[in-house]
Amino acid sequence: MFKEEVEKVFKKIIPALEWIPKYKRSDLSGDMSAGLIVAIMLIPQGMAYAMLAGLPPVIGLYASTVPLLIYALFGTSRQLAVGPVAMVSLLVLAGVSTIAVPGTDEYISLVLLLMLMVGLIQFLMGIFRLGFVVNFLSHAVISAFTSAAAIIIGLSQLKHLIGVSLEADKDVLMILLEAISRVSEINPVTFGIGLTSIVLLIVFKKFVKKIPGPLVVVILSILSIYHLQLHKVGVKIVGEVPGGLPPIYLPAFSMEAIVALLPIAITISLIGFMESIAMAKAIAAKEKYKVVPNKELIGLGLANIGGSFFAGYPVTGGFSRSAVNYQSGARTPLATIITAVLILLTLLFFTGLFYYLPNAVLAAIIMVAVFSLIDVKEAKYLFKVKKIDGWTWVITFVATLLIGIEQGILIGVGFSILVFIWRSAYPHMAELGYLQSEGVYRNIKRYPEAQVDSEVMIFRVDESLYFANMTFLEDKISERITEKPQTNWIILDFSGVNSIDAVAIHSLEELMDAFKNSDIEFLLASIKGPVRDLLKKADWNTKYSDKLDHLSIDQALRSIGK
Amino acid sequence: MFKEEVEKVFKKIIPALEWIPKYKRSDLSGDMSAGLIVAIMLIPQGMAYAMLAGLPPVIGLYASTVPLLIYALFGTSRQLAVGPVAMVSLLVLAGVSTIAVPGTDEYISLVLLLMLMVGLIQFLMGIFRLGFVVNFLSHAVISAFTSAAAIIIGLSQLKHLIGVSLEADKDVLMILLEAISRVSEINPVTFGIGLTSIVLLIVFKKFVKKIPGPLVVVILSILSIYHLQLHKVGVKIVGEVPGGLPPIYLPAFSMEAIVALLPIAITISLIGFMESIAMAKAIAAKEKYKVVPNKELIGLGLANIGGSFFAGYPVTGGFSRSAVNYQSGARTPLATIITAVLILLTLLFFTGLFYYLPNAVLAAIIMVAVFSLIDVKEAKYLFKVKKIDGWTWVITFVATLLIGIEQGILIGVGFSILVFIWRSAYPHMAELGYLQSEGVYRNIKRYPEAQVDSEVMIFRVDESLYFANMTFLEDKISERITEKPQTNWIILDFSGVNSIDAVAIHSLEELMDAFKNSDIEFLLASIKGPVRDLLKKADWNTKYSDKLDHLSIDQALRSIGK
Repeated sequence: MFKEEVEKVFKKIIPALEWIPKYKRSDLSGDMSAGLIVAIMLIPQGMAYAMLAGLPPVIGLYASTVPLLIYALFGTSRQLAVGPVAMVSLLVLAGVSTIAVPGTDEYISLVLLLMLMVGLIQFLMGIFRLGFVVNFLSHAVISAFTSAAAIIIGLSQLKHLIGVSLEADKDVLMILLEAISRVSEINPVTFGIGLTSIVLLIVFKKFVKKIPGPLVVVILSILSIYHLQLHKVGVKIVGEVPGGLPPIYLPAFSMEAIVALLPIAITISLIGFMESIAMAKAIAAKEKYKVVPNKELIGLGLANIGGSFFAGYPVTGGFSRSAVNYQSGARTPLATIITAVLILLTLLFFTGLFYYLPNAVLAAIIMVAVFSLIDVKEAKYLFKVKKIDGWTWVITFVATLLIGIEQGILIGVGFSILVFIWRSAYPHMAELGYLQSEGVYRNIKRYPEAQVDSEVMIFRVDESLYFANMTFLEDKISERITEKPQTNWIILDFSGVNSIDAVAIHSLEELMDAFKNSDIEFLLASIKGPVRDLLKKADWNTKYSDKLDHLSIDQALRSIGK
Repeated sequence: MFKEEVEKVFKKIIPALEWIPKYKRSDLSGDMSAGLIVAIMLIPQGMAYAMLAGLPPVIGLYASTVPLLIYALFGTSRQLAVGPVAMVSLLVLAGVSTIAVPGTDEYISLVLLLMLMVGLIQFLMGIFRLGFVVNFLSHAVISAFTSAAAIIIGLSQLKHLIGVSLEADKDVLMILLEAISRVSEINPVTFGIGLTSIVLLIVFKKFVKKIPGPLVVVILSILSIYHLQLHKVGVKIVGEVPGGLPPIYLPAFSMEAIVALLPIAITISLIGFMESIAMAKAIAAKEKYKVVPNKELIGLGLANIGGSFFAGYPVTGGFSRSAVNYQSGARTPLATIITAVLILLTLLFFTGLFYYLPNAVLAAIIMVAVFSLIDVKEAKYLFKVKKIDGWTWVITFVATLLIGIEQGILIGVGFSILVFIWRSAYPHMAELGYLQSEGVYRNIKRYPEAQVDSEVMIFRVDESLYFANMTFLEDKISERITEKPQTNWIILDFSGVNSIDAVAIHSLEELMDAFKNSDIEFLLASIKGPVRDLLKKADWNTKYSDKLDHLSIDQALRSIGK
């Protein structure tokens, strides 16, 4: 009995204890081929994204080992492919490059500290069930932020693609201007390799989907550089990639660094989780199992905490690799374990192969990968349906592109919440008249033929009432009263009022009492259950017992003899 | 023709041009007696509130002249009594005393700058129609903030009441502790005068409403001090009050000071306007005329701008004096003009009379005035109706009392908006079943006997849908689907969905498409007009034409042959 309880608890904490004992042999072939294909994708991507993050390429490989093994044990998604991703890499660069020079030892140790912080934040958010916070990242904000970040990422790789070490690295306009002004310095061979890679990657992505394009360009470019000795004409290559297992590192602790990194750590925690959970949920929905957002946070958190002691950098579940993992037949997290083991084998035996890999090829891989993230269609859609939502997109996009990555997302979130609050503060209200042909009450603006009693005004309130929108309601009613001074009764149709807060109830009472002094009586009709419960708590069944029970406008009218 | 147009524009800008030409002799007696009574109230209150703001008493009189005349011309309320008020005085002290020592020349010139800034902010808010901003100051926040501020104000006067110059002046606990530890230093005569004044003020307030209590205690105390020469036994008196018209001053401009004063200027602009507009609206509703919030902002703004050149300090419409003004028969702003003229006459000829006025009496006037602002009843009411609204009150109250005045209101506003957002992110959703006895669909949790079809799930959504609450809806549906896997149809009753944003439409489409892959079909029923319009903009009449037209759950069920 006790043993069962303990087992239950363990299974709750470590989801892997759920699937490992039940593992079916029939799943093995799918898991193996998916694990292999993802590893083949991950090797060049990991190195490329590490370069984007301002780190030596091998760190990208290290980050593709320990974190994957940990996630396979603690994650609840069966197909999510965890590892380095473009967006998080850009955030690492944006955040850490302001306090240390990319590539230096100080930079690397700060990145490890950042990874540990990201892990701890995600872990704690999971423990305290704070996963819901990402709901406030509106899809419009994410789409715009991602689009702008993709442009920044793409342009940040321009220097590798043309072989000119540009000094501008964050400001989009400055990068473009500098590149144009130094067009004569472009290394034609490097640029040629880069452009050819881009073309090949696009062709493979579109027309030869079975074979991973990155693998092809990596192999082709290494062979060409080696045979033609192109690094001697100025083509920058990756050079020595240290072999062996990921080294054990302790992140450098310092209070000052922790404070400086906190904003970027929070941003990465949220953005990383959001990218991850969106993909995990999408796959789980198709496969009809459940991912638990807060457990996912714990799994990702532990993966980042673990990785921070093995020379990694922040990881999360990637969109494209997860899709490939799923489509290649992954059935369980064993696929991820296989990927990690293959990367470890690569680190042990094959790092020498990457010596001649040109940086321009990694840049091309990044550029092609992020280009598909630019999502102008979404902006068009938003503008078409609701203009203000389109403006949320534009503001987030422009702010991210021109002000900064972290600022961009903050401005976007702030603006989208402001829009929501603004909307709720100006609720839709309609004055109703009786439409004889249909036997119902309708908005007199839409149906001017609807009949109106000269002594009665009927309003339908189409919004929950709370402190910030009661004034609007009051003003609207007062305005109409001055236009129609012979009014003796006001009927409020509450059928659209889903909820009400205590302050709004109080304001409503004041409003009714104030109008009573001017001999205008309020009647409420069609109050919903939850609202009625609250009004009863505010003593309405003694104070305004006559006002609570009109189930319809008709009933309310009958009660005053109309 | 042209002349008429010009006249119209002028009347729009200067509301006084509306009432002055139409002035009725019958209104004169009311205006005169109200003007006189308010002046009698205002003289001691103005001096007391100036003292509270850390200013020489005469500044309170100056602030009761020019600003009143300007408001009478530009304001839209006919009964609002503008002038120094307790809350704004406290905010002035809290804001300016952090950068200069109260009572010094530097302090006074900073207060003048602050008044100018408050005026400009209010004026610009009025011009740009930003008056709605105060709607976000929830009544719960205001009640708690006012209550805490009243306690702080009362305690800040303790030193005058007991005649001990306490060093602690802002921290409530420190003031109490210091007062207790220095109990032996209390000046018994001062304390006696203070206590007697408090008792008299309460008695007059409660039982002798016709005679203004402050006038009585001021006269009695001046006479006693003069005859008994009590200032020679340590009773602090007001002393020399400079006579003559308000001097012309230029506020001291400095960029540094402007930046430092900006937060407090914004706070005073909003709090002052809110106190003012609440009272103006209440009176206007009773008298059946209209005040225009944005015009009120312009009127108050100009009053403050004007006053800042005549040695005043920030003014607004006061609660108690406006009530007295209205009850004493004020019919037009002429009452306010009469008040201002009487104060000017006092400044010219009678300032000598205040020489012997004891500070303890002014302190007593403040204490009695603010005591009635402590509003614990509201907190009790909020707790009873909705606990979280009660917590808004408590958090604002505690933050204002212990952290600080400006911080308190910020925390309160932030918390109340958070509560609102939180609530909307977790909308009420009910799963419905058919209740044969009533012939309607009801929540199966409230009505367990309601019939449910094994292949159909019906949900009623009781909230507008927007980006932050779609995940909740998705999760809820997915959860129920795993519990009831034989489901083939999901009907969403949209009768409670008042509005929807573009992001939520997009999520809804994704949700429907994802479930379609699992052979689960969505149907929508009872979509409201505005929501239907938006869905049409998102091309639903081509994409999901079958989903838009079910006017009821029954219709939706019939369409799938149930």
